[in-house]
Formats: sequence, structure tokens, C-alpha cells
Amino acid sequence: MPPIPPAVLTPSAVRTAATRLQSIQRQLASQSGSTSGQRGLNTVVTAGNNKKRMVAQKKHKVAIVGSGNWGSAIAKIVAENTKHYPDVFQEEVKMWVFEETYLLPSSHPRYDFSKHSQPVKLTQLINELNENVKYLPGIRLPSNILATPDITDAVKDATILVFNVPHQFVSKICDQILGHNLPYAKAISCIKGVEVSSEGISLFSDVIGRRLGIYCGALSGANIANEVAQEKFSETTIAYQPPKDIPKEQEMPKEYPPVDHATFKTLFHRPYFHVRCISDVAGVSLGGALKNIVALAAGFVDGRGWGDNAKAAIMRVGLLEMRKFGKMFFADTCRTSTFTEESCGVADLITSCNGGRNHKCAKMMVATGKKIEEIEEEVLNGQKLQGTSTAKEVNEFLKMRGLEGEFPLFTAVYSTLTPILMHIVRGGWSANPCRHYRDPQGRVHR
Amino acid sequence: MPPIPPAVLTPSAVRTAATRLQSIQRQLASQSGSTSGQRGLNTVVTAGNNKKRMVAQKKHKVAIVGSGNWGSAIAKIVAENTKHYPDVFQEEVKMWVFEETYLLPSSHPRYDFSKHSQPVKLTQLINELNENVKYLPGIRLPSNILATPDITDAVKDATILVFNVPHQFVSKICDQILGHNLPYAKAISCIKGVEVSSEGISLFSDVIGRRLGIYCGALSGANIANEVAQEKFSETTIAYQPPKDIPKEQEMPKEYPPVDHATFKTLFHRPYFHVRCISDVAGVSLGGALKNIVALAAGFVDGRGWGDNAKAAIMRVGLLEMRKFGKMFFADTCRTSTFTEESCGVADLITSCNGGRNHKCAKMMVATGKKIEEIEEEVLNGQKLQGTSTAKEVNEFLKMRGLEGEFPLFTAVYSTLTPILMHIVRGGWSANPCRHYRDPQGRVHR
Repeated sequence: MPPIPPAVLTPSAVRTAATRLQSIQRQLASQSGSTSGQRGLNTVVTAGNNKKRMVAQKKHKVAIVGSGNWGSAIAKIVAENTKHYPDVFQEEVKMWVFEETYLLPSSHPRYDFSKHSQPVKLTQLINELNENVKYLPGIRLPSNILATPDITDAVKDATILVFNVPHQFVSKICDQILGHNLPYAKAISCIKGVEVSSEGISLFSDVIGRRLGIYCGALSGANIANEVAQEKFSETTIAYQPPKDIPKEQEMPKEYPPVDHATFKTLFHRPYFHVRCISDVAGVSLGGALKNIVALAAGFVDGRGWGDNAKAAIMRVGLLEMRKFGKMFFADTCRTSTFTEESCGVADLITSCNGGRNHKCAKMMVATGKKIEEIEEEVLNGQKLQGTSTAKEVNEFLKMRGLEGEFPLFTAVYSTLTPILMHIVRGGWSANPCRHYRDPQGRVHR
Repeated sequence: MPPIPPAVLTPSAVRTAATRLQSIQRQLASQSGSTSGQRGLNTVVTAGNNKKRMVAQKKHKVAIVGSGNWGSAIAKIVAENTKHYPDVFQEEVKMWVFEETYLLPSSHPRYDFSKHSQPVKLTQLINELNENVKYLPGIRLPSNILATPDITDAVKDATILVFNVPHQFVSKICDQILGHNLPYAKAISCIKGVEVSSEGISLFSDVIGRRLGIYCGALSGANIANEVAQEKFSETTIAYQPPKDIPKEQEMPKEYPPVDHATFKTLFHRPYFHVRCISDVAGVSLGGALKNIVALAAGFVDGRGWGDNAKAAIMRVGLLEMRKFGKMFFADTCRTSTFTEESCGVADLITSCNGGRNHKCAKMMVATGKKIEEIEEEVLNGQKLQGTSTAKEVNEFLKMRGLEGEFPLFTAVYSTLTPILMHIVRGGWSANPCRHYRDPQGRVHR
């Protein structure tokens, strides 16, 4: 590998750094990164492996299920790549939108009184303006995205489904899709988190896969949606490892390019959005969920002014509890490196503890002495923080198994959130482990 | 292990969390954490292992070599513990101070015109006021610290030497000590960093050990000195793994308690300063040095406003380059987990990238377009940043071996610092990888 020429730390140098390191990592880890099949096809270069691949007789059709902030940002990436790799993908990307009407503000640069003086259907606005004016305003979407309010229409020919909906709607949406998806379609869930109850843990990728009878992987990383949409540099992790034995009808027909790590890298990797593919679906999903508990803890530490050392310690301990949780409950597949080395692990944790909303609200909570519910009302218009529900669900799960003591940080965070104890917070429990220095005249110094 | 009771996330809950996790980690990793010898002694409980140990006939005498900001904070910890464990240590801790005179400000709470109207020797002030008024003002030091300007006096009876001096003075100070230290003394270096030249890498622990003919381990972690001195919670990592075959005269006499992980934990662990002991001296030392290069990169990213995703990505990539460097050049001893799981690795990196001075100055550099030398002059009174010299030394070392391309982030950081390229920075190279959205009227939106 030749040395890279002296250059300033430009965006492209950073990308080069990341790319090269990834290739080194791949070599080191000998993670096979599935090689593409040779099915009597013509060659084409993809982003995935920089090797020549074969052009298949048929092309993958990609559908995006969901069109919120993150859903629209992911749709933008996907549509850029389907256009860029016409040998692998059909250019058009259908994006399912939960239909609503929207009154375009007259300040919008393309406001046209004759069309926009009344509320208009959101799908219509997206397709007219190439912009999700409600959920990702100000970002131009590729024109090959076709917004549709009809979910069966969105998915019916799609060989690759990308799910990006609020987690509470996953099951309902799957019910609407069932019977309309191709039996051999493959899916990727970009839904952060897991469903934890006292009974057990469900990965959203498993929920989707089970309900639709298809295989579903996961995508997660240090990905603040607006930054990704603005094409600021970031990284992500895709986990995809379908079982070897699948029913005949679920096998991707040979006319299509194989759906593997290389194909997903081709679909999601952009110069500003770097993808690493691994096989640990549970680790990727857990990372996106559990880091929110740690972000709450980091917010408490910041709110109390305990300092940067303590915050780093909390994040380190939190990262290890995340890993331990994964290894304990998904022993077969979960890998330490998913948490300690991948974007979906340590990097997502760092982003979340530095400026994510769980961190911010937790910090406000201890700084103001208000209940978390009040903060949610004020800051999030009553939306619930993911971290608080995850902390509660994880605690119920652990308590049921008598394992609370094994996860002291998760347990402490949950306990802090318990309303009955909030008076202690409000009463100003000893905030600062600093021992003040009191001089002989009784004056306190730090 | 019983579940911990519901409680708010108090400092003590955080400590409990950290302690329990550490004990779990120890079990998991089966890191033996040397057990103490049974040399016909009486039992005593120490912090190190919570097991009963034997009281030895002789007690360890600890000397601190160095008394700057971090040296004084470490002396405070050590002296608290020598007092707390009188069966293991002699209470008095001598601290060598580079003698200088200091004029106590009249605003000091214990200013006494009759004594302090003229500059006074710093050792005298420290011993009179129990405060290092110049380098750690406002922090009360334990009265069992005895400051001395005579280095031979400080070390002559000491069985444990703790080094905490500016790295450029290490060799000279060792020369002054040589011949005055006990041949069987053991040492811990708290000096951050390593000495890298085109010829090779020297760990300061090795430099000290070689020059004095004794074994020296290392201590490093997410430890901003002032926060530690204020007893804000933090963690640290101690690496200590003396070779099995040592010359007879270097063996600790049987009358003393053995010097092992348990003893070092007893000496350094405090309720507000949690210690983990490992064996990877190279990893601990490299972590403290290389993170400064990554902190510069993180500063550039922040200065350019590339966003939290990009910063987290840079930190992740930086952490992996740190690990790769360790594994490549200290293959025999370096462990991945030292970087990805210990305070001296990931946690120190987080602290340094969030508010350390390398990060701060690098951010200012790109934000103002000034040369790094100008920033150092303005912010650090001309003191050099550790990160810039480490970046340069590491680059020379890698270039000599044709390995620059293997460490693209380290290389990019060094190249960014090269003065000849600074005009590019000043000229405002395209700052932001964000692609703006230009509306049909030509107005730019984000």
C-alpha cells in the first residue's frame, strides 16, 4: 500500500484514512465479507469490493419503508447509489410515506401560492419538490425517489426492503406488507434499538423477518440524520448474515446479483457515508439501543459537573456493560469487537454522549431538578426519550432474571429515573464528589 | 453478587458500578492479579484484593519524584493511602521538588506578611501550608507529604518510586538518582507518552528502569489532574509485569510485603480514583502518547464544524490506529483490550478529544487560520503541545520504515501540522463536506 501524499486533513484525507483502515481491518480480521457468486454474468465494478462483479440479467429493486428524518436521509443515500450502479439496481426507489397533509410555509424558496396555499398531501409535495419538506426540510432528494402512500405498491416488486419507521409501528406495518412482498426479498432494518420486555429481547430485524418470512439484517452507526443528509462525513455498520439453510422459495433467483455484503456496501456506501459490513446483527441492534442508557448516565454526570474524567469513566463502564449484555444474552453471535471497534458501538456511544437528545435531556433534568416527563414535554413536545423506556425495559428484563447486580450502571440509571426517588434529585443530593478545601478562616476553596 | 438497592445515580452509585464491573471483568478475563505471598506474616486487609494479607516485618517507603500539577495530585493520593494502610506503608511520603522560589500572593487565605512578603522556597511553602501553591493551588495536601529539594534524600530509603516529571527531564533526573536508590526498589512511571525517534520507540518506564537498574511499570488513564486533585471521580490503569528472572540484588527482600498488583492497588486506589491493574506496560504507555495525535484530529474536525458523526468516526479510527501501532511494534505484550476497554485507552481518548489542550489548540488553529506555533504561544505561553511533537516523531518513525500508508490518520494529522502547508489551511480549504442545497433562485440552503 503506497504512503498517502502529504496533505492537509481535508475531508477526502479523512475518508482515505477511514477507507484504508477499513481495508487493513478487513485483512487483519479475515472477516470474509462474502464474495460474489459467478453466475455466468458480465463484469461490473461496485463500491463494495472494488473487484469486478458480474452483471446479472435482472436488477434489484429497492423500496424504503418509512420517510421520517432518518428514513429520508437513508432514502437519499440509497437513491444516489441505485442511480450510480445501474448494472446492479433499478434506478427508481419507491419510498413509502405515511400520508398526511402539510401546509408549505410561504417562506419556502419554492413556494407557489397557486399550488401551496392549502394543505397538500405530503407524498405530492415530496415528488413535486424533491424534498421531504416536513421531516427533512432543506435537503434536496434525488429525483429517482418516488414517494407513495400505498405500502403494497411500494414493496410489491422490491427485492430489497429498507425499513426505517418508528419502532412502535413495526408490527402493524409488517401486517400490511404481508402477502405483498416477494418471498425472496431481503431486508435491512435501520430502526435503532431492540424490543425488551420482562419476557425477552426481540431485535427489530427478527420481528420484521419473522412476520414477513424473509431474512432481515440491521444498519446502525454514529449517524445523526441531519448531518448525514448534509453529507457531512460519517460511518455506519451493516450486519447481515442470513442462515445457510433457507426454504427454497426464499432463495434469491439466480437472475439477480447475489445479496451479500458487497451488494449492501454498493447500496449504502457513499463518499460521505462509509459502510463496514459485519455478521453480528444482535450486536449492531443492541448497540443502538443500550447506548441510550449510557447517554442518560453521561447527561447526569455533565448536569452535576462531575467532570470529564468521570464522564469518560461512565462511558467506558457503559460500553463494557453493553458488551456484557450482548455476550450474556446473544452468546452465539455477539462479538466484543462490534461494541469496542465498530461505528455502531463505541462511535455511536461517543456521539450520543456528546450531544444526543438523551444526554441533553438527562443533563437538563439534574441541572433543573425537573422530572424527566416535564423535560420531555418541554424539549420533545411530549415525545418519549428512547433511553428512558429502554432503561426501564432492560431493568425489568434483568430484574426478572435476578441479574440487576451484574449491570450496576444500567441499574443505577433506571433507579435515577424512578419518579418516586426524584425528590432526592430535586432536594439536591450531594452533587459533587469533590472534597472542598476549607481554609482556617472557614472559607471554602476548590 | 446481590443486586444493588434502587438508588439515584450518586457518586457512590457510580463508584459501586465501576467497582462491580471491575470485579466482573477480572473474573471474566481471568487476569490473575498476582496473589500475595505468604511469608510468615500477620493478616491485614488492603484495598487491592479485599483478601486478608500478611503484615510484613518491614513497610514500604514511597517516594514521589516530581511535584508539578499531576505529580502533586498523585502525591496526595499516595499519601492518603500510606496513612490509611499503616501495615503496608510507612506513613511519610517524600516528594522531590525542583527547588525554586515563589512569592505567595497576598490573596492567599493563609498569607502572613511576616513570612510571605518575600519570595520563599517552594519546598518550604509546601511543607508549611500543605499545599503546592504554585502548581496545584487550592488543594490541601496530606500533612504526611514531606517536600524535599534533595533528590538523593528523597529516594534513598524508598522501596517504591513514583515518577512524575516532565518527560524531557527523565534522563537527567535518573542520572542524579543513580547510585542512591535501593537496588531492589520498584518504580511506577506516571509520565504520559513515549519517546519516539526515527530509530525506535522508548517507553519512559523502560528508560527509568534501564538507567536505574530496577523494574518500572506505568500508570495512565483519563486523569485530568485538577479533577483528580478535587476528588472528582475517575479511573486509571496501572501496568506492572516485572520479568520472572531478575538478578538476585533486585529481588525485594522477604521482610517487605511483595510488590504486586494488590500492593499497587492499595497504594493508588481511592474512593474517587479507581485503579485497574494489567500487565501491558507498552499499551498503557502508548495510549497516553498516541491519543494526543487523535485529539488533534478531533480538534480539526470540531474547528471545521464537520459534526459529531465525523468526530466520532475520527476517534474510532484513531483508536484502531493506536491499537494497530501497539500490536505492530510491541507484538509480544500489547493487548487489544488495553486500547478498547481500559481507562488508559478509550476513556483517556474520550477525555482528550472532548476538552484536552491538544484538542482545544487544534480547534483554534483551524478556526482562526493561525499556525500551531502561534496558538501555542498564545494559549500555552510558548509551551509545546505534546500532540504535535508526538505526531512528528511518530511520522518520522513510520516514514523510516515505509509504513506511513498503514496509519493514514496519524499521517494526515502530521501532514496537517507541516508549516509549509499551512497556507492551504489559512486560505480556507473547502471546510465542510456538506453539499449545500441551492434553490432555483440561486439561494443556498442547508
